[in-house]
Amino acid sequence: MNNRRTLSVALNVFEKFQPRLPESYRALPYVLLGNIAPSLQRSVCEQVRKPKFVVADTMDLWIGMARADLLELLKEVDMLILNDSEARQLTEEDNVIRAGRKIAQLGPRYVAVKKGEHGCLLFGREGEFFSTGAFPLEMIHDPTGAGDCFAGGVIGHLARTDDISFPNLKEAIIQGTLVASFCVEEFSLRRLEKLRAEEIAERRKIFGGYIV
Amino acid sequence: MNNRRTLSVALNVFEKFQPRLPESYRALPYVLLGNIAPSLQRSVCEQVRKPKFVVADTMDLWIGMARADLLELLKEVDMLILNDSEARQLTEEDNVIRAGRKIAQLGPRYVAVKKGEHGCLLFGREGEFFSTGAFPLEMIHDPTGAGDCFAGGVIGHLARTDDISFPNLKEAIIQGTLVASFCVEEFSLRRLEKLRAEEIAERRKIFGGYIV
Repeated sequence: MNNRRTLSVALNVFEKFQPRLPESYRALPYVLLGNIAPSLQRSVCEQVRKPKFVVADTMDLWIGMARADLLELLKEVDMLILNDSEARQLTEEDNVIRAGRKIAQLGPRYVAVKKGEHGCLLFGREGEFFSTGAFPLEMIHDPTGAGDCFAGGVIGHLARTDDISFPNLKEAIIQGTLVASFCVEEFSLRRLEKLRAEEIAERRKIFGGYIV
Repeated sequence: MNNRRTLSVALNVFEKFQPRLPESYRALPYVLLGNIAPSLQRSVCEQVRKPKFVVADTMDLWIGMARADLLELLKEVDMLILNDSEARQLTEEDNVIRAGRKIAQLGPRYVAVKKGEHGCLLFGREGEFFSTGAFPLEMIHDPTGAGDCFAGGVIGHLARTDDISFPNLKEAIIQGTLVASFCVEEFSLRRLEKLRAEEIAERRKIFGGYIV
């Protein structure tokens, strides 16, 4: 369950979607551009007045069919999130360390490379690096949405703490990893629907002993 | 370069090898049983009088053709080292967390599961767990011997510090990871021949910032 391939895409409502942000959203400091066409992500980004930190998620589909748009987007975001095979695809580098460092030179200040059960790597433009494993789980019921949970956990932590220093970005990566670890424990949204903040905090404590 | 398959094996001198330890070796407290037939590993182990900590390395070949011997050996060692695909093979578990925990119930107090570029997991029989990434390298020239370097780094650290507490076992795993990271930088033994202890200590410092 650590790899996925895109066999077929139905964009459905996204095909003609032109997101217009409500006024109250335009003043928000922390922005997560969910995984939609890079041109739409840019249009959302431009509607936010003075974002403090913009995270963009992407995927193999857009790297393949909207590369130029994606490269434009990269100049405007603070962090790109993608998985290891996508990092290789975007850079045409086989080595994921070289791939991550290369993407960090394409515009985003930071690049988070997700590796599923193997955790996540964080690269900074100035050579910063952080590596964390995933929370150890004996049973993966449904990996669907784990990437979105990761991204949500990251931006949620940054927004909550209002701190974009590198040490806090590391912590955001860990928080994203933990939120994703709950997501995969049950089918669909079931685990998330009942997830409480204290459960994440509890798992964070356990995880601390696992990685240090 | 993260996976290897055994296509052909020539045991050569190992085929009729009956190791007899010199008297001075029999009193040593820290023992690394290199990757040879489990029955030979046991015979070496029995020649050591009162070992304080015994680490055994193994591989797919022995899991396939000497499983019964290997299971016997596991009852006598303190730590087994193997890679993730071998952990799956030994336990017939697809999930590496479940595999590692299961092996820790087969005899060894600890199990180190190597994952190449993804680092290493350490499992303890009492539920202890530790996860570390690998040292980030942009170029892997030759992975041959990385597993032996890892095992050597682990037992070397334990012997040098004479401390088999779990926190020090975590550190041993990191030291093994770092020694292996030098091994793969050049072909054959070339990098190891000129490797100095200070270089490992220096890399340890850098690595510290990468994982915490």
